[in-house]
Amino acid sequence: MPSDDIALREQGTAFLPKFDSQGLLTAVVIDSRTRDVLMVAFMDRVALDATIETGFAHFHSRSRGRLWKKGESSGHVLRVEEIRTDCDQDALVIIANPAGPACHTGAPTCFYRRLHEGSLEPTAT
Amino acid sequence: MPSDDIALREQGTAFLPKFDSQGLLTAVVIDSRTRDVLMVAFMDRVALDATIETGFAHFHSRSRGRLWKKGESSGHVLRVEEIRTDCDQDALVIIANPAGPACHTGAPTCFYRRLHEGSLEPTAT
Repeated sequence: MPSDDIALREQGTAFLPKFDSQGLLTAVVIDSRTRDVLMVAFMDRVALDATIETGFAHFHSRSRGRLWKKGESSGHVLRVEEIRTDCDQDALVIIANPAGPACHTGAPTCFYRRLHEGSLEPTAT
Repeated sequence: MPSDDIALREQGTAFLPKFDSQGLLTAVVIDSRTRDVLMVAFMDRVALDATIETGFAHFHSRSRGRLWKKGESSGHVLRVEEIRTDCDQDALVIIANPAGPACHTGAPTCFYRRLHEGSLEPTAT
């Protein structure tokens, strides 16, 4: 990529989301109240547009191969408060207010275990 | 995947990181002091093992196609304090103490811009 394009992408005000070879970028969802990482998922162009237009987080389900509104069956939607992009615009942080547990297991966050001496154990928080 | 395998992966104590078709999983780095998201990158098996063994975050550089120790040239290494996994073990949260700005642009975090009415603006924090 020419250096002018890199500067534009990294320092400019234009939102130029960069999707990978599979048409996806990474979205990290943060709880706006606790600042905990709730989940990590992928967005294609359609999911990103739906998120921006509706104010609720949408993703591309790789396993189901379709647009997925988070909480569409559980009701545990994620109301988006802010969207941040990283330097090269291939990852987003979605700051959101969750309507319920973010994880399909019922846990508040998907990151409920930590690595300790080669095994997993519950996190304190 | 049989339901027993899913239960083992989601609820068990075995660390069974799930790499995608390109041999990668997503790693989200959090500042252990501020709890800000510093960066998002990818790890293959080699990078994950190097991270666990050395205590410093390593990634797989997709652009360079090789193992990349974060800070190897800048000195801005990430000392790992905790590694968390998500429910299906295809994403990790790395809680780390950064030795300097995490972003190659010199910003403390790569997420220094937010979307506002279709354009990007600097984040307050």
